[in-house]
Amino acid sequence: MNTELQQEDSLFIGIDGGGSKCKATLANAQMELLGQAIAGPANPLHGVDRALNSIVESAEQALAASGKQNVQLSDLIAGVGLAGLNLPSLYKTVSEWNHPFRKMFLTTDLHIACLGAHGGGEGAVMVIGTGSCGYRFTRDGSIIYGAHGFPFGDKGSGAWLGLEAMRAVLLAADGLGPATLLAELFAQSLSARNLELVEKMAGSLPCDYARLAPQVMFAAEQGDEVAVAIVQDGAEYLSNIADKLLSQGPLRFSLLGGLSEKMLTWMDQRVVDQVSAPLAQPEIGGLYYAQKEYKFWRGIANAASS
Amino acid sequence: MNTELQQEDSLFIGIDGGGSKCKATLANAQMELLGQAIAGPANPLHGVDRALNSIVESAEQALAASGKQNVQLSDLIAGVGLAGLNLPSLYKTVSEWNHPFRKMFLTTDLHIACLGAHGGGEGAVMVIGTGSCGYRFTRDGSIIYGAHGFPFGDKGSGAWLGLEAMRAVLLAADGLGPATLLAELFAQSLSARNLELVEKMAGSLPCDYARLAPQVMFAAEQGDEVAVAIVQDGAEYLSNIADKLLSQGPLRFSLLGGLSEKMLTWMDQRVVDQVSAPLAQPEIGGLYYAQKEYKFWRGIANAASS
Repeated sequence: MNTELQQEDSLFIGIDGGGSKCKATLANAQMELLGQAIAGPANPLHGVDRALNSIVESAEQALAASGKQNVQLSDLIAGVGLAGLNLPSLYKTVSEWNHPFRKMFLTTDLHIACLGAHGGGEGAVMVIGTGSCGYRFTRDGSIIYGAHGFPFGDKGSGAWLGLEAMRAVLLAADGLGPATLLAELFAQSLSARNLELVEKMAGSLPCDYARLAPQVMFAAEQGDEVAVAIVQDGAEYLSNIADKLLSQGPLRFSLLGGLSEKMLTWMDQRVVDQVSAPLAQPEIGGLYYAQKEYKFWRGIANAASS
Repeated sequence: MNTELQQEDSLFIGIDGGGSKCKATLANAQMELLGQAIAGPANPLHGVDRALNSIVESAEQALAASGKQNVQLSDLIAGVGLAGLNLPSLYKTVSEWNHPFRKMFLTTDLHIACLGAHGGGEGAVMVIGTGSCGYRFTRDGSIIYGAHGFPFGDKGSGAWLGLEAMRAVLLAADGLGPATLLAELFAQSLSARNLELVEKMAGSLPCDYARLAPQVMFAAEQGDEVAVAIVQDGAEYLSNIADKLLSQGPLRFSLLGGLSEKMLTWMDQRVVDQVSAPLAQPEIGGLYYAQKEYKFWRGIANAASS
């Protein structure tokens, strides 16, 4: 039997590549964590080369952090979850990459987030951060809701809250919509009113809009009717996603992302009642994914060579 | 009296600078049109240098088209209306330009569009094209509604219709919104469905979204409930702008822009009843503006020198 195929001695690396950073964690087959690192943006939708560079960089740094001598990237079995890989053409592009690892198993950032949240088992997650989406993974397969991106998707997310709030503030500025506390909050935080806001926000990225989201949540908490209507609209969409995720029967269910805690308070009680805390980070999910896929691949390889 | 200040012998150039092109028309003091030309994009919000280049280029070509010998840009009195100049910082930047004309009078594209539509007189206009806005110009001053830009403004415009339709189609794709004919129409025109649509439209410009608008209007005309709701929402906003524009009493009122005719059929009858056809193009409005401002300036200069 080929020693290269021994799982027990193998080193695994879990990689979580997102729009703002790429996180990598090195572990052995017993899931003892040996080294971690963070590199730059790794969403291939915003640049494939930069994403692949960030993956390599985070892996090299995690390896260096482990202090392991005489180990190269070409010794590692990688489980890589990337944002944007739900898009077929991006999946194809990245899967054709001449990667530096011994083996690379590629999936979406949602998949490894879900595996991490549920300790490698089945479950569902909803991400409410700069963007929004829902994901369910069971033995029957996986499904994604949302994850369509800005500006046409990501309802209920930070970027969406910021965009809807900007729309409402500009309507109010023209006297074509109700007055809102949001105008005062944006005037303070952005030092801009009315047309100055347009200048400040022209060409903004989703993360720029998402930076306005805490103010939208605050205004809603203060009872500002415009903000309440926006937040309720977003929360209703997110509750509907949760219903879809859990419609096949009870399943471990976690919320992820910086806005999830605040937004949960606006969601339906039937959703709130089913939420469990995530068990681990997405890059740990990447390790689970690498181990599971490698075991499966080794089984096939062994069967073929016997 | 300084002969340089004689209006009768002066040559005027009216320039309409927008996001896709820059139009220039040369005329004498009697408003006889002598030459016309079109150059590239001239919205300073999308690049000040390119906009200024397009202004010079369109003026040089209009001068060449007139066949006038021994006339330079430095002989012309320019009336220049530019998109984006409602934003204070852009107005400042462009007004500090070391321009090549004898005199340059600078204003918004809306102002010269309004002057053109109403033969140089008072009135109001509403633009419904890629973007949307309303403008009123009377002896009491001017006011703009909307003109906030994509993606947070321009409600009821082509870009807004396209964006809202994309949102609705993606909601339907997830089973989180009602089914809509728009999904079929986009599948045909973009050869894309569901997540493929996301890939097609990621990073799109307002003009890309606006290209979807005719399909949204068509679906609404066919009675598709999703499209009807979008178009009605946009039309209600535009009707509200018209009410604001005409709230100070009757005024000559015109609609401009490629979507105005179709969208008018969805607007309130009280608006429809007040619409008159535009009399001339915006660049002609630029000529009116140059002549009026030059006359005013000459009066001040003469008073100062007497």
